[in-house]
Amino acid sequence: MVDTFGARLQERIRALGPLCVGIDPSRQILESWNRPDSVEGLEFFSLAVLEAVLDTAAAIKPQVAFFERFGSEGFRVLERLMAEARDADILIVADAKRGDIAETNDGYAEAWLGHRSPLVADAVTASPYLGVAALAPLFEMASANGRGVFVLAATSNDAGRSLQRARTDDNERVEELILRSIAELNRRDDGLGSLGVVLGATRDHPEFNLPSLGGPFLVPGVGSQGADAQNVARLFDRCPPATVLASVSRAILQAGPDRAALRDAAQRWRDDLSAALL
Amino acid sequence: MVDTFGARLQERIRALGPLCVGIDPSRQILESWNRPDSVEGLEFFSLAVLEAVLDTAAAIKPQVAFFERFGSEGFRVLERLMAEARDADILIVADAKRGDIAETNDGYAEAWLGHRSPLVADAVTASPYLGVAALAPLFEMASANGRGVFVLAATSNDAGRSLQRARTDDNERVEELILRSIAELNRRDDGLGSLGVVLGATRDHPEFNLPSLGGPFLVPGVGSQGADAQNVARLFDRCPPATVLASVSRAILQAGPDRAALRDAAQRWRDDLSAALL
Repeated sequence: MVDTFGARLQERIRALGPLCVGIDPSRQILESWNRPDSVEGLEFFSLAVLEAVLDTAAAIKPQVAFFERFGSEGFRVLERLMAEARDADILIVADAKRGDIAETNDGYAEAWLGHRSPLVADAVTASPYLGVAALAPLFEMASANGRGVFVLAATSNDAGRSLQRARTDDNERVEELILRSIAELNRRDDGLGSLGVVLGATRDHPEFNLPSLGGPFLVPGVGSQGADAQNVARLFDRCPPATVLASVSRAILQAGPDRAALRDAAQRWRDDLSAALL
Repeated sequence: MVDTFGARLQERIRALGPLCVGIDPSRQILESWNRPDSVEGLEFFSLAVLEAVLDTAAAIKPQVAFFERFGSEGFRVLERLMAEARDADILIVADAKRGDIAETNDGYAEAWLGHRSPLVADAVTASPYLGVAALAPLFEMASANGRGVFVLAATSNDAGRSLQRARTDDNERVEELILRSIAELNRRDDGLGSLGVVLGATRDHPEFNLPSLGGPFLVPGVGSQGADAQNVARLFDRCPPATVLASVSRAILQAGPDRAALRDAAQRWRDDLSAALL
């Protein structure tokens, strides 16, 4: 039997703290690092961040969009980053927000959770607009391979709020529907399940009882989006220990390109988050 | 001033008919073509379908998930397919269903709608779970470059229905919110705008007055998902001529690998759709 992603993540958070570092090689950040907005700049940036946070972060979260903008060449850089991260034994959450009808999600499951794939991650983010049930191929491959899926529930941006808080014909808010559905799927696993949710640190407590999710939380919106370690701690106050992975991107990345400054920023965030959450 | 994607699409539909052929190189279809489930199989299949439908279809719709499962090598095949399609002057709708917060959608806009990108398409599909407003970078690049975006409204699968029909705090169904938001954005353009929606052929008439969208409709679910040309015609009965692009995948693809059979299947669907819609 393979260890669940949830169990592996929990162990890693206990050892290293709850910090996940978002690797977001946007045009703007490459500029601020005085690097060209090119495949070479992308590769330099990504590997530099990985190296600087290796001993501090439980996971990295490459934002696939910023690699995809260079097409297959950008994906080659992402593959190299992921290979180096696997070698260094740091968890990888591919922030891809994929989601389609079930037949098509087979393809995304293979891409991000399949053993053969050069893009295989420890977990991938998924978008439920076509229904949580349509994501079944991702869930099944995650369970089979000891990998995970973080399904978007309540995101950190304001623009998503009206949709995510809409009420179904059963009078349940969409974000609550996602949380409840994932909790039901996790009940099949012993211990912390493979299936998590994305819940922005800038959001309010949902009605759903978060400790009953039975899986991990990926929490963006920390740092430059406005939330701090205390906000995260309050939102997840009664959750089991080491189930919350807090993702910080710009607030750390902008400390570069100086490696020591980058490393210091990551350590400060890790220490703050550990003190508040563990 | 650049022609809008809507205007270019309308011209193409008038000339060739309303058929869009989905290029879905899943493991299953490669098997049924007696081709290996490999990068080579992917390339053979994709180029064969393109060649067979060139004179019949207004557009091709490569399903990105099935290329992505081979990582950067799969994306290389997708880039080659897209380059050949551009040379042959057939429109490309990249079925990627991308969507994230606005800052990240900059990356997806560059990838799928940017002039420099090897993945540049005539239009890309986008998912609104993080809000229609968050998709602004895609809309802006589409307008600037004469390209388009099809935003998911009501999809053809049952699993998405409860979320898409949930009601916002303004008592508007999510799918209606998407339709209305896109219609408002299209009002900035003369003629048929750059922004369309995905509306499954298997769905009922929404409350929203479809002819007022001011942009094109991408209509999956035709063929093996159960809808026929008559269903499409009924759903869009009062819409302006040549604004509906009906996407057929498996019902055509399974006629291969024989090229003549593939070509015949595409022509039959094109003729049926043209008779019903034009």
